[in-house]
Amino acid sequence: MINAVGREIPEEVLKATGKEPFKGVYAYDNYEYTKAAPTVRTLNDPTRSKLVENIHDALVKCGIKDGMVLSFHHHFREGDYVVNMVMEEVHKMGIKDITICASSLGKAHDPIVPYIEDGTITGIQSSGVRGKIGEAISTGRLKNLAIMRSHGGRVRAIESGEVHIDIAFIGAPTCDEYGNMRANGGKSDCGVLSYAMVDAQYADKVVAVTDCLVPFPNIPASISMVDVDYVCIVDEIGNPAKIATGAAKPTTDVRKIMMADYCTKFVVNTPYFKEGFSYQTGVGGASIASTISLGKIMEERGIHMGLGLGGITTPMCELLAKGLVNKLVDTQDFDQGAIESIKTNPNHFEISASEYANPFNKGAYVNKLDFVILASLEVDVNFNCNVVVGSDGMITGAQGGHPDTAAGAKCTIVIAPLLQGRIPAICTNVTTVTTPGESVDVVITDYGIAINPRRQDLIECMKDVDLPFCTIEELRDKAYAMVGTPDPVQFDDRIVGVIEARDGTIIDVVRKIKDYEFTTDVE
Amino acid sequence: MINAVGREIPEEVLKATGKEPFKGVYAYDNYEYTKAAPTVRTLNDPTRSKLVENIHDALVKCGIKDGMVLSFHHHFREGDYVVNMVMEEVHKMGIKDITICASSLGKAHDPIVPYIEDGTITGIQSSGVRGKIGEAISTGRLKNLAIMRSHGGRVRAIESGEVHIDIAFIGAPTCDEYGNMRANGGKSDCGVLSYAMVDAQYADKVVAVTDCLVPFPNIPASISMVDVDYVCIVDEIGNPAKIATGAAKPTTDVRKIMMADYCTKFVVNTPYFKEGFSYQTGVGGASIASTISLGKIMEERGIHMGLGLGGITTPMCELLAKGLVNKLVDTQDFDQGAIESIKTNPNHFEISASEYANPFNKGAYVNKLDFVILASLEVDVNFNCNVVVGSDGMITGAQGGHPDTAAGAKCTIVIAPLLQGRIPAICTNVTTVTTPGESVDVVITDYGIAINPRRQDLIECMKDVDLPFCTIEELRDKAYAMVGTPDPVQFDDRIVGVIEARDGTIIDVVRKIKDYEFTTDVE
Repeated sequence: MINAVGREIPEEVLKATGKEPFKGVYAYDNYEYTKAAPTVRTLNDPTRSKLVENIHDALVKCGIKDGMVLSFHHHFREGDYVVNMVMEEVHKMGIKDITICASSLGKAHDPIVPYIEDGTITGIQSSGVRGKIGEAISTGRLKNLAIMRSHGGRVRAIESGEVHIDIAFIGAPTCDEYGNMRANGGKSDCGVLSYAMVDAQYADKVVAVTDCLVPFPNIPASISMVDVDYVCIVDEIGNPAKIATGAAKPTTDVRKIMMADYCTKFVVNTPYFKEGFSYQTGVGGASIASTISLGKIMEERGIHMGLGLGGITTPMCELLAKGLVNKLVDTQDFDQGAIESIKTNPNHFEISASEYANPFNKGAYVNKLDFVILASLEVDVNFNCNVVVGSDGMITGAQGGHPDTAAGAKCTIVIAPLLQGRIPAICTNVTTVTTPGESVDVVITDYGIAINPRRQDLIECMKDVDLPFCTIEELRDKAYAMVGTPDPVQFDDRIVGVIEARDGTIIDVVRKIKDYEFTTDVE
Repeated sequence: MINAVGREIPEEVLKATGKEPFKGVYAYDNYEYTKAAPTVRTLNDPTRSKLVENIHDALVKCGIKDGMVLSFHHHFREGDYVVNMVMEEVHKMGIKDITICASSLGKAHDPIVPYIEDGTITGIQSSGVRGKIGEAISTGRLKNLAIMRSHGGRVRAIESGEVHIDIAFIGAPTCDEYGNMRANGGKSDCGVLSYAMVDAQYADKVVAVTDCLVPFPNIPASISMVDVDYVCIVDEIGNPAKIATGAAKPTTDVRKIMMADYCTKFVVNTPYFKEGFSYQTGVGGASIASTISLGKIMEERGIHMGLGLGGITTPMCELLAKGLVNKLVDTQDFDQGAIESIKTNPNHFEISASEYANPFNKGAYVNKLDFVILASLEVDVNFNCNVVVGSDGMITGAQGGHPDTAAGAKCTIVIAPLLQGRIPAICTNVTTVTTPGESVDVVITDYGIAINPRRQDLIECMKDVDLPFCTIEELRDKAYAMVGTPDPVQFDDRIVGVIEARDGTIIDVVRKIKDYEFTTDVE
């Protein structure tokens, strides 16, 4: 069946997953459903302890068995030790057929690839995967379909019962013996525990994993003891050096600075740029440069950002510290500056991933965004974006909050250099659709800026603005003129993954990569 | 069937309610159950508003109909306007057969008694009732059985699906247009919104009712927008003068001061009185006096309270401000001092009612109590307490956190004057059992102190302590010697209410009061 972004979703995938094809960004607005709920055990005898000896003991007490779904969060980013230590123990115990439901997976988790190959892990659900897990999926080594969801989509999937978590392992920088978890105060601070909050509320069993046990009560708790079955103390939950990098240095890449300047000029010429506006940006060099250049104009004009949202970096915290931002609302900390800011600045707040972006709650922060500044691996002439699958067909990125913020924001701006090396970023068809063009308003490249024709209001706004506007087709044509029309990636018929839209429908599928076959006219 | 506190629970009540008879305080420890879940509607179209015109509009949009369950919180105490304004509108609309599920009801709600009489309201579930609603229930004017639950028991009932809330109306001192609610910052501050948190999470529809709309986002939110369907702005949600009284003046009643001194002497001679101990007390004169006298000893000996829990009054906040308490963990603010403290003292925290006392979560704060100091209308020779039904048989009080804290605390102390006027507080059988004697350790009266024989360890501790110890039977006998053996209250056969134990079993029933018939030996 052809879905609303023109992708063929094979019937057998729809049948196997029970999902619908994507129908449009707001197709599930005002949709009624009954939430899922965990099966839990009470603890009201005050003499019982939650402390367990080690991960093995926790697994045994949680009744680990073949076929279970285990969940993890990614706030420790490339410094995470929790996924590997749990899966190593699961593997040792000879458990098979585990599905990992993680908020994201990265190169830190390369060591679990052998467990994919031996059938310990047969399912992966994540925002995305980088490194060797992506290769394992793209080359057909994972038994079941991988499912890629946005951050908001993951909360929806858990809360609606699309996925049921048997055991959640939640790494916590600090924890007390009753399970109150905080993201700060230990040796592996990560700033917030936003993505793990839904796991605690919807998993049957919840294990807090910490390397810093603190006195009861560890409050205000990011995750409350009322949802925690066991507390497991380990030597190290992560590598602090890889959890938080130092503050990102402003880019010196002139191309990125130029795109950032285009972006800022665009933003300030929209009607949404006014006192109290709301804004989110990513961690790419151009995004950060645009935050910095926007900050200068805010300061000049005396305009304050009411709300800064999402994954937070030091430049946003600096605007907060300067009083140019009223409130920062945080789901992930990308650097040490952000982790410090949330510990010390009373206007920097932790929120849950549901509050951030869940399309199935009664209203998320993304709905309140004026601007979001995003990056993309590829953008096509329908403004569809691909942030998960490389132009070589390999899974290598993550949806993150891309489709969530794009759907919510009044003005969604994607910044992408026209060429990524020799690969056109603007193309006729993206390899895989991960964010629908319906929710992308502007594409800014180093060779020109295209406004989505759906946004005649923005086109009208910009008619006297001195920026290099053109059509998206013109951008594509420029790219193809420079590096040639790219050959389509050669895929096998086998589908190895599905890209879920934030509402749980299928926006695209990911196929197994074929060994490259040279085409030749010579017989 | 006779339950574990020796009360006859008629089969027809067990059958009608589907409940079990009470089996003991920890009978449901480690009990497995699947949580309930609401049926909700998504809001992901950013253009939709949650604002409604008025209560009528909110009711219509929520699909109000006969037989629904509406819920309310009692943080505005005797100053609450929300229950009455909603029920007046429900009545005007001709809706019938509503069950009110409130965290508590009081004299402020006397105006809804006519709606009980005309069938608008046919069910009441509450911690307790005071005033005319209590009379209406006790005199048989409510159609269905009233259900009285502890604060923890209410959360359990909602989370386990024993009661399903169709529409929650949550009064909020401040709220933004997307439903983020806070207990402070408006004209009717109430300090915390702890009891309403479970309503927001488990009701199908949630309406925020506020008299102070503030800019988005109103954070940190006590109740998040993600659970809120509609926001209704009204003129006044309550009478600030009755929401928060001034700080309670220390009692000058020598009898209360004596009991408070006994209590403090008992506390400091237990092994639990040591650095970092945890403590909760009520709002009665003797309780407050014991907090003050305990504070003096803490100061003398350099012992700090690690945790002060529950409903908070100014004397506890003063200990916090002096540095004698490390953390105050708050579910209700009883006076202006407490409301000010939580706004300004970073070691004064709001928690949910589930975190406070829910016996069916994975561990509540009450489990961590060393001491709780409680009051009681009646205590019997089995240490059973009655805090709901007056000795005249009229429902006039509330369970509150009484059974929750008693079950959790290592040392549960009940302070009661031997006589309440001409009524013995210590008796052979309490009119109604609301807290089982199994979880009551000590009874302190102005005529002596009885330790529960189950607590031989405490009896041993106190053997050299100079306090007027005696048996509970001796206390009862003293009381009866002074005022005579009381006549049993004359009840009708009809059962008008059930007292739920915190685990949802029936600990006692409440019968309709009979018109008093004089007994006479004269023929």
